Amino acid sequence: MELLKQRIKKDGKVRSGNVLKVDSFLNHQMDISLFEAIGKEFKRRFADCPINKILTIESSGIGIACIAAQSFGVPVVFAKKNTTKNIDGAVYSAQIESFTHGRIYNVIVAREFLSPDDNVLIIDDFLANGKALIGLSQIVKKSGANLCGAGIVIEKGFQNGGKQLREEGMRIESLAIIKSMTDDGEIEFE
Amino acid sequence: MELLKQRIKKDGKVRSGNVLKVDSFLNHQMDISLFEAIGKEFKRRFADCPINKILTIESSGIGIACIAAQSFGVPVVFAKKNTTKNIDGAVYSAQIESFTHGRIYNVIVAREFLSPDDNVLIIDDFLANGKALIGLSQIVKKSGANLCGAGIVIEKGFQNGGKQLREEGMRIESLAIIKSMTDDGEIEFE
Repeated sequence: MELLKQRIKKDGKVRSGNVLKVDSFLNHQMDISLFEAIGKEFKRRFADCPINKILTIESSGIGIACIAAQSFGVPVVFAKKNTTKNIDGAVYSAQIESFTHGRIYNVIVAREFLSPDDNVLIIDDFLANGKALIGLSQIVKKSGANLCGAGIVIEKGFQNGGKQLREEGMRIESLAIIKSMTDDGEIEFE
Repeated sequence: MELLKQRIKKDGKVRSGNVLKVDSFLNHQMDISLFEAIGKEFKRRFADCPINKILTIESSGIGIACIAAQSFGVPVVFAKKNTTKNIDGAVYSAQIESFTHGRIYNVIVAREFLSPDDNVLIIDDFLANGKALIGLSQIVKKSGANLCGAGIVIEKGFQNGGKQLREEGMRIESLAIIKSMTDDGEIEFE
């Protein structure tokens, strides 16, 4: 997606440790008109799928998922990283190791919001080692729902999460796949 | 906002400890068409304000803020509950005690995303004791931005946060104000 790649080149900042900061438009400050274009592109790529629910994970996936949901005309469910006292009853859960935060989260989705009748699209802002995507797909599998695929805004193609999951048969549509980043800020796309 | 009140009556569930569960449409599964109506109502109520930025807090405020931002044509910034290695440089911070999670968070907003040029609308899903709103308004104040007001989806009118903050001069527009809830599920609005 050319608009997105240009924006990453313009406003993305490379930090040591393979960190790409896109917090001026994607995951701290959020450019909603860019999100609208992203949502339409996800819809174009998954137009052949009978998606009736979008699943994402707090926090930075939520905004993108909600705007994308308008293009699909479906509700969004976001997986929560902690059990709060506002979630009672049975939940589906999975463990996810966070690259950004350097720890393991237990993520949950209330059982009532995913069922075998659902055709689910997972949406997230980043795909790197694939841990979040694996956890979310485990939750979809436990629920008996059909996983149509995953829509990712930025994939770090030089890490192996996307490659591995595609080899296992998951359909992943990433709107910008980064081939390489250098510490002096050069970003190259696949 | 009648549509919202009807939805709360229909799908909201009262739990002990003054907990109102609205996770089937507001803060776990999210009904995006309802969010669109909510966003338009916030715009109608704040039409007189030169709002150029919406501020919310992760996680359950983000979806509502992003959809509302479409009615205002502005970006959204969400305050983060933990310092992650993806946020470098200077931040504005405040401490917020969470009623839902029973602990104190340090919340931060990167300095580059709030400035004295900004006219800010805070959006959040709930207002109860007002702790989140106080923390967010402290961050706005520290940045030198102008706080236009706060748009809240559900206010627990029987707790004192909204009353107190209005007395201190904050403009708060709550779309549904709950007067009372009983353990057998009766919800009465102001």
